[in-house]
Amino acid sequence: MQYLFQGWSCRGEEKYKDMLMDIATEEIGHVEMLATMVARLLEGAPVEDQEAAMKKDPAIGAIISGMNPQHAIVAGLGPRPADSVGNPWSGAYIIASGNLLADFRANLNAESQGRLQVARIYEMIDDRGVKDLLSVLLARDSYHQNLWAQAVKELEEKEGTILVPSTFPRNEERLDIAYDFYNFSEGDQSKEGSWAKGKALDGEGEYQWLSTPKVEGKAPKLDPVTPKMYGTPPEK
Amino acid sequence: MQYLFQGWSCRGEEKYKDMLMDIATEEIGHVEMLATMVARLLEGAPVEDQEAAMKKDPAIGAIISGMNPQHAIVAGLGPRPADSVGNPWSGAYIIASGNLLADFRANLNAESQGRLQVARIYEMIDDRGVKDLLSVLLARDSYHQNLWAQAVKELEEKEGTILVPSTFPRNEERLDIAYDFYNFSEGDQSKEGSWAKGKALDGEGEYQWLSTPKVEGKAPKLDPVTPKMYGTPPEK
Amino acid sequence: MQYLFQGWSCRGEEKYKDMLMDIATEEIGHVEMLATMVARLLEGAPVEDQEAAMKKDPAIGAIISGMNPQHAIVAGLGPRPADSVGNPWSGAYIIASGNLLADFRANLNAESQGRLQVARIYEMIDDRGVKDLLSVLLARDSYHQNLWAQAVKELEEKEGTILVPSTFPRNEERLDIAYDFYNFSEGDQSKEGSWAKGKALDGEGEYQWLSTPKVEGKAPKLDPVTPKMYGTPPEK
Amino acid sequence: MQYLFQGWSCRGEEKYKDMLMDIATEEIGHVEMLATMVARLLEGAPVEDQEAAMKKDPAIGAIISGMNPQHAIVAGLGPRPADSVGNPWSGAYIIASGNLLADFRANLNAESQGRLQVARIYEMIDDRGVKDLLSVLLARDSYHQNLWAQAVKELEEKEGTILVPSTFPRNEERLDIAYDFYNFSEGDQSKEGSWAKGKALDGEGEYQWLSTPKVEGKAPKLDPVTPKMYGTPPEK
Amino acid sequence: MQYLFQGWSCRGEEKYKDMLMDIATEEIGHVEMLATMVARLLEGAPVEDQEAAMKKDPAIGAIISGMNPQHAIVAGLGPRPADSVGNPWSGAYIIASGNLLADFRANLNAESQGRLQVARIYEMIDDRGVKDLLSVLLARDSYHQNLWAQAVKELEEKEGTILVPSTFPRNEERLDIAYDFYNFSEGDQSKEGSWAKGKALDGEGEYQWLSTPKVEGKAPKLDPVTPKMYGTPPEK
Amino acid sequence: MQYLFQGWSCRGEEKYKDMLMDIATEEIGHVEMLATMVARLLEGAPVEDQEAAMKKDPAIGAIISGMNPQHAIVAGLGPRPADSVGNPWSGAYIIASGNLLADFRANLNAESQGRLQVARIYEMIDDRGVKDLLSVLLARDSYHQNLWAQAVKELEEKEGTILVPSTFPRNEERLDIAYDFYNFSEGDQSKEGSWAKGKALDGEGEYQWLSTPKVEGKAPKLDPVTPKMYGTPPEK
Repeated sequence: MQYLFQGWSCRGEEKYKDMLMDIATEEIGHVEMLATMVARLLEGAPVEDQEAAMKKDPAIGAIISGMNPQHAIVAGLGPRPADSVGNPWSGAYIIASGNLLADFRANLNAESQGRLQVARIYEMIDDRGVKDLLSVLLARDSYHQNLWAQAVKELEEKEGTILVPSTFPRNEERLDIAYDFYNFSEGDQSKEGSWAKGKALDGEGEYQWLSTPKVEGKAPKLDPVTPKMYGTPPEK
Repeated sequence: MQYLFQGWSCRGEEKYKDMLMDIATEEIGHVEMLATMVARLLEGAPVEDQEAAMKKDPAIGAIISGMNPQHAIVAGLGPRPADSVGNPWSGAYIIASGNLLADFRANLNAESQGRLQVARIYEMIDDRGVKDLLSVLLARDSYHQNLWAQAVKELEEKEGTILVPSTFPRNEERLDIAYDFYNFSEGDQSKEGSWAKGKALDGEGEYQWLSTPKVEGKAPKLDPVTPKMYGTPPEK
Repeated sequence: MQYLFQGWSCRGEEKYKDMLMDIATEEIGHVEMLATMVARLLEGAPVEDQEAAMKKDPAIGAIISGMNPQHAIVAGLGPRPADSVGNPWSGAYIIASGNLLADFRANLNAESQGRLQVARIYEMIDDRGVKDLLSVLLARDSYHQNLWAQAVKELEEKEGTILVPSTFPRNEERLDIAYDFYNFSEGDQSKEGSWAKGKALDGEGEYQWLSTPKVEGKAPKLDPVTPKMYGTPPEK
Repeated sequence: MQYLFQGWSCRGEEKYKDMLMDIATEEIGHVEMLATMVARLLEGAPVEDQEAAMKKDPAIGAIISGMNPQHAIVAGLGPRPADSVGNPWSGAYIIASGNLLADFRANLNAESQGRLQVARIYEMIDDRGVKDLLSVLLARDSYHQNLWAQAVKELEEKEGTILVPSTFPRNEERLDIAYDFYNFSEGDQSKEGSWAKGKALDGEGEYQWLSTPKVEGKAPKLDPVTPKMYGTPPEK
Repeated sequence: MQYLFQGWSCRGEEKYKDMLMDIATEEIGHVEMLATMVARLLEGAPVEDQEAAMKKDPAIGAIISGMNPQHAIVAGLGPRPADSVGNPWSGAYIIASGNLLADFRANLNAESQGRLQVARIYEMIDDRGVKDLLSVLLARDSYHQNLWAQAVKELEEKEGTILVPSTFPRNEERLDIAYDFYNFSEGDQSKEGSWAKGKALDGEGEYQWLSTPKVEGKAPKLDPVTPKMYGTPPEK
Repeated sequence: MQYLFQGWSCRGEEKYKDMLMDIATEEIGHVEMLATMVARLLEGAPVEDQEAAMKKDPAIGAIISGMNPQHAIVAGLGPRPADSVGNPWSGAYIIASGNLLADFRANLNAESQGRLQVARIYEMIDDRGVKDLLSVLLARDSYHQNLWAQAVKELEEKEGTILVPSTFPRNEERLDIAYDFYNFSEGDQSKEGSWAKGKALDGEGEYQWLSTPKVEGKAPKLDPVTPKMYGTPPEK
């Protein structure tokens, strides 16, 4: 759905819109594959007289108690649009900002987390059929990481900077603090990173590492509000 | 909180852990700055006899009706940990996978969306004081985009590939389909992208664009489950 | 997504599965139509210097303050997968139980609420283009109400009862209380309904209206639990 | 709560309002019965030194690990207003539209899913006492399915159509496409359904099955928005 | 619902259980009063041709754009189980721990926030009828604050301590740090509070204010996990 | 985060603001302690070939199936910002009203539920290291209960009443019903409580217990709304 919303929101970028619709369609197919896999795995799941089964054979008990009970009770041994602990999928996860460079970074992240999670599941199971399906998803996630990284590179080159949004006038931001690393926590190992000195990736500034963060202004102090808000009454 | 969880989960990567704790601490400060700004903006907000005010002066009415009423009712003209339509912040937004390359991409995306949103708000208001505060945030978001992009680059070079996770044995994925673009939607503008042909970014394969997706296997067919699940009864 | 999950979970009911996939695909198209409509309506939306605009022209102020600010800030004047107050869409809304009669009733309800809401929005606006689009959705929702009601009727006839699930052995439920209306609230107008007397729709029992609910058993009383739960200590 | 909100929102339909308040009150009683059942089942639950217990007796381990830990930690071996995987109940599930025909369909669906889920749980347990309680709920859900189906029938007859809302002027919808089935997915088994030909249930039109969906208009194309939104910059 | 769950979970505390059921029933009545009030206020709400109305009369525009659109679209000018920005009510808000002293503190807090919010709304409106209804709720919230504070006092005296849970053996907690205030933030005004020195309220210890928090142990360091988790690979 | 928002919203109450910032900082440390504990406990967790392991050794199966799978799949054996069944933490839990007496009661409740839950977990485990950590948290929760109770007492004395908000003019509430207990449920044990007779805690009124609640006004009746809302059509 993230790719669909990004594609539907494209304003004049035909090459990217078409690509987004292609990948979005493929991903609906991936969900169908997973839904089918879940349904098949559950076909023979032990659901009758669970308590009795648990007591008779602890191994079956372990399998039953590791199951998401909603697969049986709510979905009749079918799939659910939820994560591995049953949290329902939420539209709040969708990122479609109208700025493709920002959104392709979101997509690159999504495919990175995705391939990582599939790799972990791959190790946690020993069912050959499931592993075969996952090896397809792993390959497609590899391609999609390549694809989004490539599209990010293409846009960064076209827009002439790695900063999103590229068109915001930089003189309206506080450029004097736009390349500083502030050492806010104990330890100073952070100064050993490539982000701590040298030419910045955006090609404009020079990183610097400050052992003590700059302080500007005074500690903030709020005025009282109208007594009609019934806050804590002021000291007399 | 995302950076805190990533830092707390670091296993032996001291340079990155220290850096994450530095940035996490800075971000708590940013939330404090925004919370203070919201509280100050609301100090003189019109909250009494709203309906009467709306009828008397429509401009005040427009301002009142554009306010999030929870700022007055729930927070007494203070800030709320919610988005611009009042959805509460959710722990489900936190990404901390234990794989730093994956997570730094999540962070690069977060700072990209963040700077984009601040830039938009910057244009939507004309209060000089608020713009001054936002120009600080814009600069820090610029640095943080540089920082995460730099850290991503450092890790990609160290791990020798752009693919997450870098250590999964590639021969266990379906390499024969790991570089294909499938043309799943109408239109073929997608073949003009840099993801459609040439050497892949991971340095291993060659992209190819397929006008028709490969079909493998047959349409899936599910078996019936135990009648104890009370699904639709089979046709007789 | 509800229709997709119902279709993917079909076990051997090909006619229904194919129909579900047809309607699911059409509905993705409806979302695209609405997403496009939202994006077009927002193309010329006033987003710059909002506070100034509100003060200058209260009518523009009213329009701005009636807008969902996330369309501008988060989506760059694009659509969002959220309801009219910005609550994100949730996977918990999806009903796909593996029992088609139950689920087709869910679908009939969904299309009934849907057409009702579209009819209300139709009256609330006066933009001719939007009304034209809504008149398409109204017609399709009419068809979909006919379709689900028809499919419900077909399955009720095939399964020989209106009760879901039709295969649960009725002698294992408390049949002696399966046709009683209990008058639990003040007033007795409820006895005038067709549900209060006469042959039941399931063709098996006879409705009866009881002015006083039957009482069985005693008021429940819970035993204390282990002190390791640290509940309220018992009186000595 | 759904029935309470529907009852409280009734505008002049006394028979239905009284009936809704009766059923709503009964349902609060059902929740009390279930809450009491849960509390009693948990009275002797093994909560002390869980890890030790798991290692000593795997059957107890299976029971403990199948438990929702919040029953012990948060509720002290009492019930929680959450589903079988711990998702809290949400007010977003409540349907109370102000149109009784629409809402009674929602209620018929709710009681259908409800009886289906109770039937499944009935098979999954072997505790005689719990089964006795469930056989009461099964019977009441049977009656409630009869009741809502009956009330739906009564309203459909009174309003003279099965379409919700019955009062929307049909000439303001696109009647030319209000009886078409579009074959959007692979396979054409959908044309064998009773929804594909013959007189429509609303008594006004004639169903038709179209192997190829009608196409109207052109592919949508969005215009650029103000640069102040900082979308992807247009190609030069 | 919080009071219902607390009452249903009572184990042998009849006086408290009966009291909880009394207040729970009254609160259902309060929700009915508010639902009725909302429905009546909306009876004459302007819903037709909103955009046209906004342009013609900005004052009406301000009223319309301040409305929650779901009241019209979803509820047909009826109430919704949601807060002032439309977030649905959630079962996660319910506190019913099985320990009455803990829960009565939750209730005292709920009635405190409740009366505060009603007082604020009272000032924000000028409709005499609504103010009359709110003056009833304010009085009942006053009583309920008295009631829960009284019940808290009763239980604290009966259990012999203000600490929840009163039965946990205190020698199993780190008593040596159970009365220390740690000065973790800038500024030392916190030492002027009654919590900083003198006899503790639990009657057992003596408060002390420490300008520097005690440090115990070393900075935490995590070991690597199995490579099958595909975390960041260790430096070679 | 609750204490941070309360502290950031303080308007001129320096002693309380400083104290809130101290405790907020300590609590971030507690989360770090718990996050580290979770990460260490999971270091040796069995994650490979789970199904095989379950079948071979049921005790390991019980441990695996009792695990939150997101710790492995999503967090790579690290902590998650979620509760014991995986519900993500929500900003809606934060109470920061701008009235410190109300909010300190919220905090007293939070620390009461917190210490109760830690005490329960303490009994459920037998790992000595975890118990040692919990004994620290138990002691700090003891202090925090003392602290919030003390701060509540200080504010009640300063404001001269236990009622929140203390500044609302009491003659604008319905004082004639501000001390009544209504016997709304079966049984009259509620009259034995200290809330049923005698001087009220607020020092102003006298409690009374009414066996029958006062009835005022008539049953509510709603008028029809505009037909453009498409509610149930009125009877003719």
